[in-house]
Amino acid sequence: MTAAPFSFSLEGQSGAARAGVFQTPHGPIQTPCFMVVGTQGAVRGLHPSQLREAGAQVVLTNTYHLALRPGAALIAKLGGLHSFMGWDGPMLTDSGGFQVFSLPKKKIGDDGVQFRSEVDGDAIELTPERSIEIQNQLGADIIMAFDECTPFPADETLAATGVRRTLDWAKRCIKAHARPEDQALFGIVQGSTYTKLRQRCARALVSMDLPGYAIGGVSVGEGHELMRRIVSETVPELPLEKPRYAMGVGLPEDILVAVGLGIDLFDCVIPTRFARAATVFTVHGKIRLTNRRYRHDAYPIDTSCDCSTCRGGFRRAYLHHLFKSNEMLASVLAGIHNVRFYQRLVEEARQAVFEDRYDAYQRDFLANYQRNTATP
Amino acid sequence: MTAAPFSFSLEGQSGAARAGVFQTPHGPIQTPCFMVVGTQGAVRGLHPSQLREAGAQVVLTNTYHLALRPGAALIAKLGGLHSFMGWDGPMLTDSGGFQVFSLPKKKIGDDGVQFRSEVDGDAIELTPERSIEIQNQLGADIIMAFDECTPFPADETLAATGVRRTLDWAKRCIKAHARPEDQALFGIVQGSTYTKLRQRCARALVSMDLPGYAIGGVSVGEGHELMRRIVSETVPELPLEKPRYAMGVGLPEDILVAVGLGIDLFDCVIPTRFARAATVFTVHGKIRLTNRRYRHDAYPIDTSCDCSTCRGGFRRAYLHHLFKSNEMLASVLAGIHNVRFYQRLVEEARQAVFEDRYDAYQRDFLANYQRNTATP
Repeated sequence: MTAAPFSFSLEGQSGAARAGVFQTPHGPIQTPCFMVVGTQGAVRGLHPSQLREAGAQVVLTNTYHLALRPGAALIAKLGGLHSFMGWDGPMLTDSGGFQVFSLPKKKIGDDGVQFRSEVDGDAIELTPERSIEIQNQLGADIIMAFDECTPFPADETLAATGVRRTLDWAKRCIKAHARPEDQALFGIVQGSTYTKLRQRCARALVSMDLPGYAIGGVSVGEGHELMRRIVSETVPELPLEKPRYAMGVGLPEDILVAVGLGIDLFDCVIPTRFARAATVFTVHGKIRLTNRRYRHDAYPIDTSCDCSTCRGGFRRAYLHHLFKSNEMLASVLAGIHNVRFYQRLVEEARQAVFEDRYDAYQRDFLANYQRNTATP
Repeated sequence: MTAAPFSFSLEGQSGAARAGVFQTPHGPIQTPCFMVVGTQGAVRGLHPSQLREAGAQVVLTNTYHLALRPGAALIAKLGGLHSFMGWDGPMLTDSGGFQVFSLPKKKIGDDGVQFRSEVDGDAIELTPERSIEIQNQLGADIIMAFDECTPFPADETLAATGVRRTLDWAKRCIKAHARPEDQALFGIVQGSTYTKLRQRCARALVSMDLPGYAIGGVSVGEGHELMRRIVSETVPELPLEKPRYAMGVGLPEDILVAVGLGIDLFDCVIPTRFARAATVFTVHGKIRLTNRRYRHDAYPIDTSCDCSTCRGGFRRAYLHHLFKSNEMLASVLAGIHNVRFYQRLVEEARQAVFEDRYDAYQRDFLANYQRNTATP
């Protein structure tokens, strides 16, 4: 099933943590990799050149949002997502499932999900076939199977139904997939917090021999400890030679734990969402730039950071002023920093794997980070 | 009065239109020059590197806004405006007069203007001395005399009072100016629409031998024809060997007319303000990207444009989508284009002056632009 342009090679290991390269038609992805999220076809205020400069390798966009507006057919007509967004690196689209299952009003059946468009009120049905058709039109390098994302908490019956549908739909996705030669279809493991369900789901998906596997239904409110347990119980069921993706994960501490358990790919809106709310990451923890203490602060966000905001002479006092003045540039400068922070986190994790000192890296990072004394 | 680092050399003329270079401590300004406006210390959403890439030479900021927040003393403590904003090129600050006179509630006297801060409600008095003190603290290369900007329309008595105060205040500004060695203080000609008042004001200011002169009280609602008349009647009173600045001008057609009358410097919020409202400039006129006709449009904003948005593969359909989705990147990409459009306008005007074909340039540009058939 792994078509020609896709190959995953493991280049280093440190305990269960891995460093690898996943080849895609738009270039290699060095793992562990954190993917930035451009929900509606743009990473909130950040220019593709700023993303590249910050070290971002992969942009993730949301099938649900783009299908509603501007529509997948339009994007296909304009040459696909890469061309539409001006991003020539690897891309990933989700299946739309997560968003559809989050809607307050929807009708779920074995065939798919019915809902109304929040853009124009039209009745829409999203099925495995339709999700794959849209993702084929969008043209991302990695596409995701349409799954039933079980809400948290869920009783075992509900979770079992989710697994049954997820597996049934995965088969329908494989059958519907029209571009396996240049789009890698990843399967998604569901099963909520139930070990046996997770393992059954993982094994069944692995038997479908997909080019990669994701763990879904995490970062849905279950918290750090349950996430850790779910990942640690699921990873052993996944093949060593395929990339593993923890969907929607997460905070730096979540990512480091998951890398330590053998996860390769991550995505989350946190870097840009937090940046818009004036919260930025430093090696000494998060800080909120709107806090009065930063009004006169002549330091960059993080003196150890190599992002264009920190190296460009933009001080905390300036960013404080921009946030207080509701200047758009505040979100841009803070967003560049947060994206770079996440990229450095995984770049350094990768380096630590090569040097077989991943546990020490994680321990040292967290010791610094969780001390939470961010003012230098 | 023109201190060492400041010199203006005329390098070309075509009719009354001029091409020159104004030397400042932060580098030369090639004229005609359009200055971008960063009211609160940021050009709405645009990174300094994007401004530089678009060819912007000078950033203008507003004394009124920066004095209220974050305060000039703080900016001075952090090394001045250039360092604060991360802009190492030439800068200009206005005097705060225009904003203060635009406030609904203020008390104007011969000493200055009293008003309440819109940030914290504090009672504030802005006088010529205080305006210059603030501008000395901010540290821009060009600073502006504190003038009384007469509203439009105004009767002759009101306009005459404005001129009297403007001249009196100009002398006080000169006396108060503590950094003539690295900040050029420009005088401002007022006088509303009254030819004799304008001429009297100009002559009196010229006798003060300032390093540059501005025409104020234009772009205040008087319209294109009155602006043209005011500029054409004022310019002959100004010395050939000093830069001339038409404040707040304006639309491309206003700028070209004023260049033709001998104006060297311009500023206006239009490029970025229009960009945020989805209106972008093309050689065939303005277009509004939210218009339905652009939903499927695969062209860049302007096929003849060399900005990073047009050359970067961002199509009208993508920008339409971003505006419809309220994505911040829409304003950024459109803003980059509009700033570049204005820079090209004056760069090409300068080239036309060197080739002594300014009138033809202006005529050809307007013939294309005012045809207003922007879809290619």
